[in-house]
Amino acid sequence: MHDESSLLENDPKGAESQELYGASADLQEKVLKALSENQTNVLFTLLEEEHAADIADLIRVLKSEDRHLFLETVRHQLPAEVISELDESVRDEVFEILGTSGLAVAVKDLNTDDALDLIEDLDSEQQKEILRAVPAGERAILEEGLGYPEDSAGRLMQQEVVCVPPFWTVGEAISFIRDTGDVSDSLYTIYVVDPRHHPVGEISLSTLFKHPLDTQLSDIMSTDIRLIPVMEDQEKVGHLFRHYALVSAPVIDASGRIVGMITFDDVMSVIEEEAEEDLMLMAKVSESDFYEPVLTTAHWRARWLIVILMTTLLASLVISYFEASIQQITALAFLLPVASAIGGSSGMQVVTVVVRALATNSLREKDTWRAVGKEVLVSLIIGSFFALFAGSLVSWWLHDTGLGLILALGLFFNIIWAAFAGTLIPILIHRLNLDPAISAGPILATTTDIFGFAIFLGLATLFLL
Amino acid sequence: MHDESSLLENDPKGAESQELYGASADLQEKVLKALSENQTNVLFTLLEEEHAADIADLIRVLKSEDRHLFLETVRHQLPAEVISELDESVRDEVFEILGTSGLAVAVKDLNTDDALDLIEDLDSEQQKEILRAVPAGERAILEEGLGYPEDSAGRLMQQEVVCVPPFWTVGEAISFIRDTGDVSDSLYTIYVVDPRHHPVGEISLSTLFKHPLDTQLSDIMSTDIRLIPVMEDQEKVGHLFRHYALVSAPVIDASGRIVGMITFDDVMSVIEEEAEEDLMLMAKVSESDFYEPVLTTAHWRARWLIVILMTTLLASLVISYFEASIQQITALAFLLPVASAIGGSSGMQVVTVVVRALATNSLREKDTWRAVGKEVLVSLIIGSFFALFAGSLVSWWLHDTGLGLILALGLFFNIIWAAFAGTLIPILIHRLNLDPAISAGPILATTTDIFGFAIFLGLATLFLL
Repeated sequence: MHDESSLLENDPKGAESQELYGASADLQEKVLKALSENQTNVLFTLLEEEHAADIADLIRVLKSEDRHLFLETVRHQLPAEVISELDESVRDEVFEILGTSGLAVAVKDLNTDDALDLIEDLDSEQQKEILRAVPAGERAILEEGLGYPEDSAGRLMQQEVVCVPPFWTVGEAISFIRDTGDVSDSLYTIYVVDPRHHPVGEISLSTLFKHPLDTQLSDIMSTDIRLIPVMEDQEKVGHLFRHYALVSAPVIDASGRIVGMITFDDVMSVIEEEAEEDLMLMAKVSESDFYEPVLTTAHWRARWLIVILMTTLLASLVISYFEASIQQITALAFLLPVASAIGGSSGMQVVTVVVRALATNSLREKDTWRAVGKEVLVSLIIGSFFALFAGSLVSWWLHDTGLGLILALGLFFNIIWAAFAGTLIPILIHRLNLDPAISAGPILATTTDIFGFAIFLGLATLFLL
Repeated sequence: MHDESSLLENDPKGAESQELYGASADLQEKVLKALSENQTNVLFTLLEEEHAADIADLIRVLKSEDRHLFLETVRHQLPAEVISELDESVRDEVFEILGTSGLAVAVKDLNTDDALDLIEDLDSEQQKEILRAVPAGERAILEEGLGYPEDSAGRLMQQEVVCVPPFWTVGEAISFIRDTGDVSDSLYTIYVVDPRHHPVGEISLSTLFKHPLDTQLSDIMSTDIRLIPVMEDQEKVGHLFRHYALVSAPVIDASGRIVGMITFDDVMSVIEEEAEEDLMLMAKVSESDFYEPVLTTAHWRARWLIVILMTTLLASLVISYFEASIQQITALAFLLPVASAIGGSSGMQVVTVVVRALATNSLREKDTWRAVGKEVLVSLIIGSFFALFAGSLVSWWLHDTGLGLILALGLFFNIIWAAFAGTLIPILIHRLNLDPAISAGPILATTTDIFGFAIFLGLATLFLL
């Protein structure tokens, strides 16, 4: 007893450690030392003692040569969980060292959701090879899983699920769970099914504990269950889990039969990915950008910069139309950045809010005009303020009240336009079943640039020349 | 049996429904009908049958008058869980109708984490009033919780936690859980503590099931536990849960005593909030923007637009410095948007990637130069491509090879600068312990604008006049 608690006080995972998780500097040092001194036993012990997620993190942060040496040394002892936790940036490298046979061993040890996650990105030749190397029963399950669309509930779920009939007692259910043998730690809920294997209720493990052994399951089961269609999009599954704070939920096929269950840990990554995806899409970078090789990154990013170049050249064309005016009043050229930037930035604020509101289902179709109304009201206030403020500043700077007035008018109209278009563009894109996070920003920026230049230079040409 | 399954097939929550969650159109209709016909009993039944999260959602989407009427009608029957699930946009309104006494009743019914969440945003006068209305024991617990900093593990945790000594048997633990009476459904793990109440191990409920009743807990407990210091930042707690796929974890105070536990459902919202926060901060909108009143939104957004106006005026100042050159070659003015936009956009791509990598701990201090190196390499490729492409296009459009060449050079240097500054600026801000999501974007955009205009107009003045 006493021993255990004094051990705890020196525990590097405890309160006094700086890094709460991941491969600590300490762990890295130990591994590098063991590698250089060729102490394979130390490595094997570490593999057993450290959490799989930390070993996977270690593999990611090691330098390329060290990583290679480490993997070659431990390849036959690498736990399946470590392989399943690997970061995308090092997956291919590790897969190559392990080979198909090594991967097949790992696939056999994992729950179906993690096994699927491992093999789904391989090319079909490698997939077939691995599937041939796993037992027939498992193979059929994995092939079924691969049949579901990417990003569907079917890919997210594990097929391991405990189903019991409603006429069983608590005692029978407990013996059944105990006899299943390999009960995973991710078992939180058992499902009550009818003879056709349709889920009719669920019972949490804590509920099982609370009732006498002879209680009939149908008396204590909760019938308020959330069924997830196997083809459902994973983003919707994420929202469902968040909304009801679910720890797990049963997945059903088209005929209503239970085919698996999704647990909160699968969904946590989806929730983070989806919020992050919007951020990355709005800035036009790929999600895995940080780990991609230079050429891939350059290619991905350049595609979007070409779109921006084209729309900017369109804006240049608008300016060139007013060549004569600029020739007469050069100060118009100074103010071009102001004429477009404020409208563009305020429009991007609107787009960001609307895109997230659409993604989180806070903005529904019938709220459209309420949202537009609010944004236009906001823009009237912001527009008036900036017209006054920027107009006065520019009048004072260039000693030209007329120019200040024209800029003020241009800003005012452009900010209102930005609010109106910034709300409607994402909603329209969303209604076409496209993702507004990708294209709403650039489309809006193009309109605010062109509108901003055209109205500012147009008004100047009308009134100042 | 048969009845249940045929019921299921008509279940609106099942596979055939369109909305997987939230207040369905059907539910809204029922409530509006009951309100107009004054059928309070129908409302009370709905409150019992529907999930708290859906009732909370219903309250949000109802029109203001209907919401008021609904709340007045059901105020004494509104379950505490519904109040705890309320969206921020309607909280104040509901709190006003319920009054302090109504809130105190709800606070008594909730777990400490949810109760804290309810009262933490109230002003201190209201807080005191509610605390006076709850029993002394509960009051002490809540006051302790309010003592922890906002966004700390202490605010996130619930103080309800099952602790058992290591020398107990599985049977004793099960009886203890059963006798605790009000075992919440969010019990997934029990913690083994030493006499000083320091956690030394954890046992999942499924592990308890798997072992005979006379097994000693110390033989089956897992000692690989993650302790969360009570003052830890909630964002770090989120990463910890994600990294280890935890369902719950014990929270300890400075002396190592267990003071509560955090469960996955508290953390799911944190994970989503934090990823969303970065998105919102980068676009300079507040997180709750969508639900804020017009004046608050206008005020929040205008603050950032002023910064943008100022930096844009700085760019205008740079252009005005080249007045003479623009007077001679008006075409320079046409190309101003191109000279700044490509550098600015490519820089924002870099900033977004780096900000997220910092937030998710993928970019550590020692990776700094590796990251800068990669970004500069990418920018050399992108820069060369756009110099060639945009330069040729402009030469052809304006029939002026010299101008095309100058634009090409300007673009090339600005894109490389954007990569360099786009990586270093967020890293430096992060090292000052500030949040790069807020200021890195505008600072970078200012530098790319000014640098873009200065180098383009400067080179033109040197070589074309």
